[in-house]
Amino acid sequence: MGKVICVGLGPGDPELMSVKADRLIRSAGHVAYFRKAGRSGQARKIVNGMMAEGVTEYPMEYPVTTEIHFSDPEYNRLLAEFYDDWAVKLAKLVHSQDVIVLCEGDPFFYGSFMHLHSRLQDKAEIEVIPGITGMSGCWTATGIPITWGDDILTVMMATLPEEELTRRAADTDALAVMKIGRNLPKLKRALAAAGRLDDAWLIERGTMQGQRIARLAESEGDWPYFTIAVVHGQGRRP
Amino acid sequence: MGKVICVGLGPGDPELMSVKADRLIRSAGHVAYFRKAGRSGQARKIVNGMMAEGVTEYPMEYPVTTEIHFSDPEYNRLLAEFYDDWAVKLAKLVHSQDVIVLCEGDPFFYGSFMHLHSRLQDKAEIEVIPGITGMSGCWTATGIPITWGDDILTVMMATLPEEELTRRAADTDALAVMKIGRNLPKLKRALAAAGRLDDAWLIERGTMQGQRIARLAESEGDWPYFTIAVVHGQGRRP
Repeated sequence: MGKVICVGLGPGDPELMSVKADRLIRSAGHVAYFRKAGRSGQARKIVNGMMAEGVTEYPMEYPVTTEIHFSDPEYNRLLAEFYDDWAVKLAKLVHSQDVIVLCEGDPFFYGSFMHLHSRLQDKAEIEVIPGITGMSGCWTATGIPITWGDDILTVMMATLPEEELTRRAADTDALAVMKIGRNLPKLKRALAAAGRLDDAWLIERGTMQGQRIARLAESEGDWPYFTIAVVHGQGRRP
Repeated sequence: MGKVICVGLGPGDPELMSVKADRLIRSAGHVAYFRKAGRSGQARKIVNGMMAEGVTEYPMEYPVTTEIHFSDPEYNRLLAEFYDDWAVKLAKLVHSQDVIVLCEGDPFFYGSFMHLHSRLQDKAEIEVIPGITGMSGCWTATGIPITWGDDILTVMMATLPEEELTRRAADTDALAVMKIGRNLPKLKRALAAAGRLDDAWLIERGTMQGQRIARLAESEGDWPYFTIAVVHGQGRRP
Protein backbone atom coordinates (compact mmCIF):
# COMPACT_ATOMS: atom_id res chain seq x y z
CA MET A 1 0.00 0.00 0.00
CA GLY A 2 1.27 3.44 -0.95
CA LYS A 3 0.33 6.85 0.41
CA VAL A 4 -1.25 10.00 -0.93
CA ILE A 5 1.36 12.64 -0.15
CA CYS A 6 0.22 16.21 -0.55
CA VAL A 7 3.21 18.47 -0.98
CA GLY A 8 3.02 22.22 -0.27
CA LEU A 9 4.90 24.02 -3.03
CA GLY A 10 5.21 27.36 -1.24
CA PRO A 11 4.60 30.83 -2.73
CA GLY A 12 5.90 30.15 -6.25
CA ASP A 13 9.70 30.39 -6.40
CA PRO A 14 10.78 26.71 -6.77
CA GLU A 15 13.70 27.36 -4.39
CA LEU A 16 11.16 28.25 -1.68
CA MET A 17 9.67 24.78 -1.52
CA SER A 18 10.91 22.64 1.34
CA VAL A 19 13.83 20.24 1.03
CA LYS A 20 11.33 17.45 1.67
CA ALA A 21 8.95 18.64 -1.07
CA ASP A 22 11.85 18.95 -3.50
CA ARG A 23 13.07 15.44 -2.70
CA LEU A 24 9.60 13.87 -2.98
CA ILE A 25 8.82 15.56 -6.31
CA ARG A 26 12.16 14.62 -7.88
CA SER A 27 11.75 10.97 -6.95
CA ALA A 28 8.00 10.67 -7.67
CA GLY A 29 6.57 8.20 -10.17
CA HIS A 30 2.98 9.52 -10.03
CA VAL A 31 2.11 13.20 -9.67
CA ALA A 32 -1.38 14.77 -9.55
CA TYR A 33 -2.23 18.48 -9.54
CA PHE A 34 -5.25 20.77 -9.88
CA ARG A 35 -5.68 23.08 -12.83
CA LYS A 36 -8.26 25.04 -14.71
CA ALA A 37 -9.26 23.17 -17.91
CA GLY A 38 -7.19 24.30 -20.85
CA ARG A 39 -4.47 25.87 -18.68
CA SER A 40 -1.10 24.40 -17.74
CA GLY A 41 -1.74 25.22 -14.07
CA GLN A 42 0.38 27.16 -11.57
CA ALA A 43 1.32 24.12 -9.44
CA ARG A 44 2.56 22.22 -12.50
CA LYS A 45 4.53 25.28 -13.67
CA ILE A 46 6.38 25.55 -10.35
CA VAL A 47 7.78 22.00 -10.67
CA ASN A 48 8.76 22.39 -14.33
CA GLY A 49 12.02 20.58 -15.01
CA MET A 50 12.03 18.85 -11.61
CA MET A 51 10.22 15.61 -12.35
CA ALA A 52 11.92 12.40 -13.44
CA GLU A 53 11.62 10.96 -16.94
CA GLY A 54 8.64 8.66 -17.28
CA VAL A 55 6.60 10.17 -14.44
CA THR A 56 2.85 9.69 -14.85
CA GLU A 57 0.93 12.94 -14.48
CA TYR A 58 -2.70 13.33 -13.38
CA PRO A 59 -4.05 16.81 -14.14
CA MET A 60 -7.22 17.23 -12.05
CA GLU A 61 -9.24 19.78 -14.01
CA TYR A 62 -11.82 21.81 -12.09
CA PRO A 63 -15.24 21.41 -13.77
CA VAL A 64 -15.92 25.06 -12.89
CA THR A 65 -13.92 27.95 -11.42
CA THR A 66 -15.57 31.36 -11.72
CA GLU A 67 -18.17 30.64 -14.44
CA ILE A 68 -20.81 29.96 -11.78
CA HIS A 69 -20.97 31.81 -8.42
CA PHE A 70 -20.05 29.64 -5.44
CA SER A 71 -23.44 30.35 -3.85
CA ASP A 72 -25.17 28.52 -6.73
CA PRO A 73 -26.08 24.92 -5.71
CA GLU A 74 -24.89 23.77 -9.14
CA TYR A 75 -21.37 25.01 -8.32
CA ASN A 76 -21.37 22.91 -5.21
CA ARG A 77 -22.76 19.84 -6.97
CA LEU A 78 -20.19 19.96 -9.76
CA LEU A 79 -17.27 20.41 -7.40
CA ALA A 80 -18.45 17.75 -4.97
CA GLU A 81 -18.72 15.25 -7.84
CA PHE A 82 -15.24 16.26 -9.06
CA TYR A 83 -13.64 15.72 -5.64
CA ASP A 84 -15.58 12.47 -5.12
CA ASP A 85 -14.29 11.11 -8.44
CA TRP A 86 -10.68 12.03 -7.80
CA ALA A 87 -10.76 10.66 -4.27
CA VAL A 88 -11.84 7.30 -5.70
CA LYS A 89 -9.16 7.43 -8.42
CA LEU A 90 -6.36 8.35 -6.01
CA ALA A 91 -7.46 5.72 -3.48
CA LYS A 92 -7.23 3.11 -6.24
CA LEU A 93 -3.83 4.35 -7.44
CA VAL A 94 -2.24 4.11 -4.00
CA HIS A 95 -2.95 0.38 -3.85
CA SER A 96 0.27 -0.11 -5.76
CA GLN A 97 2.40 3.06 -5.20
CA ASP A 98 2.71 6.50 -3.64
CA VAL A 99 0.99 9.39 -5.40
CA ILE A 100 2.22 12.96 -4.92
CA VAL A 101 -0.42 15.70 -5.04
CA LEU A 102 1.03 19.14 -5.73
CA CYS A 103 -0.50 22.06 -3.86
CA GLU A 104 0.49 25.74 -4.08
CA GLY A 105 1.28 27.44 -0.77
CA ASP A 106 0.45 25.49 2.40
CA PRO A 107 -2.04 22.63 1.79
CA PHE A 108 -4.09 23.02 5.00
CA PHE A 109 -4.38 26.80 4.56
CA TYR A 110 -7.29 27.33 2.10
CA GLY A 111 -5.91 24.61 -0.19
CA SER A 112 -8.02 22.58 -2.65
CA PHE A 113 -6.40 19.36 -1.45
CA MET A 114 -8.43 19.58 1.76
CA HIS A 115 -11.51 18.51 -0.22
CA LEU A 116 -9.71 15.31 -1.23
CA HIS A 117 -8.24 14.91 2.25
CA SER A 118 -11.69 14.74 3.87
CA ARG A 119 -12.87 12.22 1.26
CA LEU A 120 -9.78 10.01 1.56
CA GLN A 121 -9.95 9.63 5.36
CA ASP A 122 -10.91 5.97 5.45
CA LYS A 123 -9.69 5.07 1.98
CA ALA A 124 -5.94 5.77 1.99
CA GLU A 125 -2.97 6.69 4.12
CA ILE A 126 -2.36 10.43 3.74
CA GLU A 127 0.65 12.62 4.49
CA VAL A 128 0.68 16.41 4.22
CA ILE A 129 3.89 18.42 3.87
CA PRO A 130 3.42 22.06 4.90
CA GLY A 131 4.66 24.88 2.69
CA ILE A 132 5.43 28.58 2.90
CA THR A 133 2.10 30.39 2.41
CA GLY A 134 1.52 32.70 -0.52
CA MET A 135 0.83 35.54 1.92
CA SER A 136 4.25 35.02 3.52
CA GLY A 137 5.89 35.24 0.09
CA CYS A 138 3.96 38.49 -0.41
CA TRP A 139 4.79 40.18 2.89
CA THR A 140 8.43 39.16 2.51
CA ALA A 141 8.36 40.74 -0.97
CA THR A 142 7.31 44.10 0.53
CA GLY A 143 10.53 44.14 2.58
CA ILE A 144 8.58 45.10 5.73
CA PRO A 145 7.82 42.81 8.70
CA ILE A 146 4.13 41.89 9.01
CA THR A 147 3.79 41.39 12.80
CA TRP A 148 5.68 42.63 15.88
CA GLY A 149 5.36 41.95 19.60
CA ASP A 150 1.70 41.31 20.47
CA ASP A 151 0.25 42.35 17.11
CA ILE A 152 -2.95 40.62 16.04
CA LEU A 153 -3.01 39.33 12.47
CA THR A 154 -6.32 38.90 10.66
CA VAL A 155 -6.48 36.88 7.45
CA MET A 156 -9.68 37.38 5.47
CA MET A 157 -11.07 36.91 1.98
CA ALA A 158 -12.11 39.89 -0.14
CA THR A 159 -15.23 37.89 -1.07
CA LEU A 160 -16.78 38.85 2.31
CA PRO A 161 -19.43 41.63 2.52
CA GLU A 162 -18.07 45.18 2.50
CA GLU A 163 -19.27 45.99 6.05
CA GLU A 164 -17.52 42.92 7.41
CA LEU A 165 -14.27 43.78 5.59
CA THR A 166 -14.48 47.31 7.04
CA ARG A 167 -15.18 46.16 10.58
CA ARG A 168 -12.36 43.63 10.61
CA ALA A 169 -9.82 45.92 8.93
CA ALA A 170 -10.52 48.52 11.63
CA ASP A 171 -10.20 45.95 14.44
CA THR A 172 -6.79 44.38 13.77
CA ASP A 173 -3.12 45.35 13.86
CA ALA A 174 -1.90 43.47 10.79
CA LEU A 175 -4.01 42.29 7.90
CA ALA A 176 -3.69 39.91 4.95
CA VAL A 177 -6.49 39.76 2.37
CA MET A 178 -6.77 37.03 -0.25
CA LYS A 179 -9.14 36.23 -3.18
CA ILE A 180 -9.07 39.80 -4.48
CA GLY A 181 -9.52 40.07 -8.28
CA ARG A 182 -12.85 41.72 -9.05
CA ASN A 183 -13.38 42.40 -5.33
CA LEU A 184 -10.65 45.06 -5.40
CA PRO A 185 -12.95 48.14 -5.59
CA LYS A 186 -14.99 46.79 -2.64
CA LEU A 187 -11.83 46.10 -0.64
CA LYS A 188 -10.53 49.60 -1.40
CA ARG A 189 -13.72 51.20 -0.08
CA ALA A 190 -13.65 48.99 3.02
CA LEU A 191 -10.02 49.82 3.80
CA ALA A 192 -10.70 53.54 3.30
CA ALA A 193 -13.72 53.39 5.64
CA ALA A 194 -11.55 51.57 8.21
CA GLY A 195 -8.79 54.20 7.96
CA ARG A 196 -6.28 51.61 6.68
CA LEU A 197 -6.12 52.39 2.97
CA ASP A 198 -2.91 54.43 3.08
CA ASP A 199 -1.07 51.59 4.84
CA ALA A 200 -2.18 48.83 2.48
CA TRP A 201 -0.08 47.15 -0.20
CA LEU A 202 -1.02 44.93 -3.13
CA ILE A 203 1.28 42.11 -4.18
CA GLU A 204 0.86 39.99 -7.29
CA ARG A 205 3.00 36.90 -7.88
CA GLY A 206 5.06 37.39 -4.69
CA THR A 207 8.53 35.71 -5.02
CA MET A 208 7.82 34.79 -8.67
CA GLN A 209 8.85 36.06 -12.09
CA GLY A 210 6.73 39.10 -12.83
CA GLN A 211 6.25 40.04 -9.16
CA ARG A 212 4.37 43.35 -8.85
CA ILE A 213 4.00 45.47 -5.70
CA ALA A 214 1.99 48.69 -5.33
CA ARG A 215 0.44 50.82 -2.64
CA LEU A 216 -3.21 49.79 -2.75
CA ALA A 217 -4.41 53.42 -2.75
CA GLU A 218 -2.36 54.09 -5.89
CA SER A 219 -3.02 50.78 -7.66
CA GLU A 220 -4.50 50.94 -11.12
CA GLY A 221 -5.72 48.46 -13.71
CA ASP A 222 -6.51 44.80 -13.19
CA TRP A 223 -5.07 42.67 -10.42
CA PRO A 224 -5.76 38.93 -10.63
CA TYR A 225 -7.67 36.75 -8.15
CA PHE A 226 -4.48 35.51 -6.49
CA THR A 227 -3.24 39.01 -5.66
CA ILE A 228 -2.78 39.49 -1.90
CA ALA A 229 -3.21 42.71 0.08
CA VAL A 230 -1.36 43.34 3.33
CA VAL A 231 -1.35 45.99 6.04
CA HIS A 232 1.75 45.68 8.24
CA GLY A 233 1.46 45.70 12.04
CA GLN A 234 3.16 48.45 14.05
CA GLY A 235 3.53 46.66 17.39
CA ARG A 236 6.04 46.81 20.22
CA ARG A 237 9.68 46.99 19.25
CA PRO A 238 12.68 47.72 21.47
CA MET B 1 30.33 44.31 -0.05
CA GLY B 2 28.40 41.31 1.26
CA LYS B 3 24.82 41.01 2.43
CA VAL B 4 23.04 40.16 5.64
CA ILE B 5 20.85 37.22 4.63
CA CYS B 6 18.20 36.23 7.14
CA VAL B 7 17.12 32.68 6.53
CA GLY B 8 13.78 31.38 7.79
CA LEU B 9 14.32 27.87 9.18
CA GLY B 10 10.67 26.82 9.25
CA PRO B 11 8.88 25.01 12.08
CA GLY B 12 11.75 22.81 13.27
CA ASP B 13 12.15 19.72 11.09
CA PRO B 14 15.34 20.47 9.07
CA GLU B 15 13.71 18.94 5.97
CA LEU B 16 11.02 21.62 6.17
CA MET B 17 13.40 24.49 5.52
CA SER B 18 13.40 25.79 1.96
CA VAL B 19 15.80 24.53 -0.69
CA LYS B 20 17.25 28.05 -0.73
CA ALA B 21 17.75 28.15 3.04
CA ASP B 22 19.39 24.73 2.94
CA ARG B 23 21.75 25.80 0.16
CA LEU B 24 22.70 29.09 1.85
CA ILE B 25 23.38 27.47 5.21
CA ARG B 26 25.52 24.66 3.75
CA SER B 27 27.68 27.12 1.83
CA ALA B 28 27.90 29.83 4.52
CA GLY B 29 31.19 31.05 5.98
CA HIS B 30 29.61 33.22 8.71
CA VAL B 31 26.47 32.31 10.61
CA ALA B 32 24.75 34.30 13.37
CA TYR B 33 21.79 33.20 15.51
CA PHE B 34 19.86 34.29 18.60
CA ARG B 35 19.87 32.26 21.76
CA LYS B 36 19.22 32.50 25.46
CA ALA B 37 22.51 32.80 27.36
CA GLY B 38 23.75 29.40 28.46
CA ARG B 39 21.53 27.51 26.01
CA SER B 40 22.48 26.01 22.67
CA GLY B 41 19.50 27.70 21.02
CA GLN B 42 16.70 26.20 18.92
CA ALA B 43 17.82 27.82 15.63
CA ARG B 44 21.35 26.46 16.02
CA LYS B 45 19.98 23.01 16.87
CA ILE B 46 17.92 22.87 13.66
CA VAL B 47 21.03 23.34 11.48
CA ASN B 48 23.13 20.83 13.41
CA GLY B 49 25.38 18.90 11.02
CA MET B 50 24.57 21.16 8.07
CA MET B 51 27.30 23.78 8.30
CA ALA B 52 30.66 23.52 6.54
CA GLU B 53 33.96 22.94 8.37
CA GLY B 54 35.56 26.18 9.49
CA VAL B 55 32.35 28.24 9.59
CA THR B 56 32.51 31.19 12.00
CA GLU B 57 29.54 31.28 14.37
CA TYR B 58 28.09 34.34 16.09
CA PRO B 59 25.73 33.42 18.92
CA MET B 60 23.70 36.55 19.73
CA GLU B 61 22.71 36.05 23.36
CA TYR B 62 19.62 37.90 24.60
CA PRO B 63 20.54 40.00 27.67
CA VAL B 64 17.11 39.18 29.10
CA THR B 65 14.22 36.91 28.13
CA THR B 66 11.56 36.40 30.79
CA GLU B 67 13.49 37.58 33.90
CA ILE B 68 12.01 41.08 33.51
CA HIS B 69 8.47 41.73 32.23
CA PHE B 70 8.38 43.34 28.79
CA SER B 71 6.41 46.29 30.17
CA ASP B 72 9.43 47.26 32.36
CA PRO B 73 11.43 50.11 30.72
CA GLU B 74 14.61 48.28 31.71
CA TYR B 75 13.58 45.33 29.51
CA ASN B 76 13.24 47.67 26.59
CA ARG B 77 16.54 49.44 27.30
CA LEU B 78 18.53 46.22 27.54
CA LEU B 79 17.07 44.75 24.36
CA ALA B 80 17.45 47.99 22.37
CA GLU B 81 21.13 48.13 23.35
CA PHE B 82 21.57 44.47 22.39
CA TYR B 83 20.04 44.94 18.94
CA ASP B 84 21.97 48.20 18.42
CA ASP B 85 25.25 46.44 19.18
CA TRP B 86 24.59 43.50 16.91
CA ALA B 87 23.42 45.72 14.05
CA VAL B 88 26.76 47.53 14.24
CA LYS B 89 28.71 44.26 14.39
CA LEU B 90 26.85 42.69 11.45
CA ALA B 91 27.14 45.87 9.35
CA LYS B 92 30.90 45.74 9.90
CA LEU B 93 31.14 42.03 9.08
CA VAL B 94 29.36 42.38 5.73
CA HIS B 95 32.04 44.76 4.49
CA SER B 96 34.02 41.70 3.50
CA GLN B 97 31.50 38.80 3.16
CA ASP B 98 27.90 37.60 3.44
CA VAL B 99 26.58 36.80 6.89
CA ILE B 100 23.69 34.38 7.34
CA VAL B 101 21.32 35.06 10.24
CA LEU B 102 19.28 32.02 11.26
CA CYS B 103 15.69 32.61 12.26
CA GLU B 104 13.12 30.00 13.35
CA GLY B 105 9.84 30.01 11.43
CA ASP B 106 9.24 32.93 9.06
CA PRO B 107 11.52 35.93 9.78
CA PHE B 108 8.93 38.70 9.15
CA PHE B 109 6.27 36.94 11.24
CA TYR B 110 7.04 37.86 14.89
CA GLY B 111 10.76 37.13 14.36
CA SER B 112 13.60 38.65 16.40
CA PHE B 113 15.51 39.45 13.23
CA MET B 114 13.06 42.28 12.50
CA HIS B 115 14.75 44.31 15.27
CA LEU B 116 18.06 44.01 13.43
CA HIS B 117 16.36 44.55 10.07
CA SER B 118 15.07 47.98 11.09
CA ARG B 119 18.49 49.00 12.45
CA LEU B 120 20.39 47.78 9.37
CA GLN B 121 18.27 49.72 6.84
CA ASP B 122 20.93 52.23 5.80
CA LYS B 123 23.93 50.21 6.91
CA ALA B 124 23.87 47.02 4.86
CA GLU B 125 22.19 45.21 2.02
CA ILE B 126 19.64 42.80 3.49
CA GLU B 127 17.86 39.78 2.05
CA VAL B 128 15.11 37.84 3.84
CA ILE B 129 14.20 34.26 2.92
CA PRO B 130 10.69 33.35 4.10
CA GLY B 131 10.06 30.11 5.97
CA ILE B 132 7.18 27.85 6.94
CA THR B 133 5.67 29.34 10.11
CA GLY B 134 5.67 27.44 13.38
CA MET B 135 1.86 27.66 13.43
CA SER B 136 1.68 25.97 10.02
CA GLY B 137 3.87 23.15 11.32
CA CYS B 138 1.45 22.86 14.25
CA TRP B 139 -1.82 22.83 12.32
CA THR B 140 -0.35 20.35 9.85
CA ALA B 141 0.61 18.17 12.83
CA THR B 142 -3.04 18.03 13.95
CA GLY B 143 -3.96 16.41 10.62
CA ILE B 144 -6.90 18.79 10.21
CA PRO B 145 -7.10 21.74 7.75
CA ILE B 146 -7.05 25.13 9.47
CA THR B 147 -9.10 27.25 7.02
CA TRP B 148 -11.74 26.54 4.36
CA GLY B 149 -13.58 28.71 1.83
CA ASP B 150 -14.09 32.19 3.29
CA ASP B 151 -12.98 31.37 6.83
CA ILE B 152 -11.37 34.20 8.79
CA LEU B 153 -8.15 33.32 10.60
CA THR B 154 -7.11 35.31 13.67
CA VAL B 155 -3.55 35.02 14.99
CA MET B 156 -3.10 36.38 18.50
CA MET B 157 -0.73 36.18 21.44
CA ALA B 158 -1.82 34.65 24.75
CA THR B 159 -0.10 37.60 26.46
CA LEU B 160 -3.15 39.79 25.67
CA PRO B 161 -5.76 40.59 28.36
CA GLU B 162 -8.31 37.84 29.04
CA GLU B 163 -11.28 39.91 27.83
CA GLU B 164 -9.58 40.60 24.54
CA LEU B 165 -8.68 36.93 24.05
CA THR B 166 -12.33 36.04 24.74
CA ARG B 167 -13.76 38.64 22.39
CA ARG B 168 -11.48 37.68 19.51
CA ALA B 169 -11.87 33.92 20.00
CA ALA B 170 -15.64 34.37 19.78
CA ASP B 171 -15.39 36.56 16.66
CA THR B 172 -13.33 34.39 14.28
CA ASP B 173 -13.68 31.16 12.35
CA ALA B 174 -10.15 29.79 12.77
CA LEU B 175 -7.67 30.74 15.47
CA ALA B 176 -3.95 30.37 16.18
CA VAL B 177 -2.58 31.48 19.54
CA MET B 178 1.11 31.87 20.26
CA LYS B 179 3.27 32.81 23.30
CA ILE B 180 1.35 30.50 25.63
CA GLY B 181 3.47 29.10 28.49
CA ARG B 182 2.27 30.54 31.78
CA ASN B 183 -0.66 32.22 29.99
CA LEU B 184 -2.31 28.83 29.47
CA PRO B 185 -4.85 29.04 32.33
CA LYS B 186 -5.92 32.52 31.13
CA LEU B 187 -6.25 31.27 27.55
CA LYS B 188 -8.30 28.28 28.72
CA ARG B 189 -10.75 30.55 30.57
CA ALA B 190 -10.99 32.87 27.56
CA LEU B 191 -11.68 30.02 25.12
CA ALA B 192 -14.30 28.56 27.47
CA ALA B 193 -16.02 31.96 27.76
CA ALA B 194 -15.98 32.25 23.97
CA GLY B 195 -17.49 28.77 23.52
CA ARG B 196 -14.38 27.53 21.68
CA LEU B 197 -12.62 25.44 24.33
CA ASP B 198 -13.87 22.06 23.10
CA ASP B 199 -12.56 22.75 19.59
CA ALA B 200 -9.10 23.91 20.65
CA TRP B 201 -5.86 21.94 20.34
CA LEU B 202 -2.44 22.48 21.90
CA ILE B 203 0.68 21.59 19.94
CA GLU B 204 4.21 21.56 21.30
CA ARG B 205 7.22 21.15 19.02
CA GLY B 206 5.09 20.71 15.87
CA THR B 207 7.03 18.68 13.19
CA MET B 208 9.93 18.10 15.63
CA GLN B 209 11.23 15.24 17.72
CA GLY B 210 9.08 15.11 20.86
CA GLN B 211 6.01 16.60 19.17
CA ARG B 212 3.03 16.63 21.55
CA ILE B 213 -0.62 17.25 20.65
CA ALA B 214 -3.57 17.42 23.02
CA ARG B 215 -7.09 18.76 23.17
CA LEU B 216 -6.70 21.99 25.10
CA ALA B 217 -9.64 21.19 27.40
CA GLU B 218 -7.93 17.95 28.46
CA SER B 219 -4.37 19.28 28.61
CA GLU B 220 -2.50 18.85 31.85
CA GLY B 221 0.88 19.86 33.21
CA ASP B 222 3.28 22.43 31.82
CA TRP B 223 3.34 23.52 28.20
CA PRO B 224 6.27 25.73 27.18
CA TYR B 225 6.16 29.29 25.82
CA PHE B 226 6.48 28.14 22.21
CA THR B 227 3.42 25.90 22.39
CA ILE B 228 0.76 26.93 19.88
CA ALA B 229 -3.01 26.58 20.24
CA VAL B 230 -5.31 26.25 17.24
CA VAL B 231 -9.04 26.13 16.59
CA HIS B 232 -9.78 24.85 13.09
CA GLY B 233 -12.22 26.68 10.80
CA GLN B 234 -15.37 24.92 9.61
CA GLY B 235 -16.05 26.93 6.45
CA ARG B 236 -17.61 26.16 3.10
CA ARG B 237 -16.73 22.83 1.52
CA PRO B 238 -18.29 21.15 -1.51
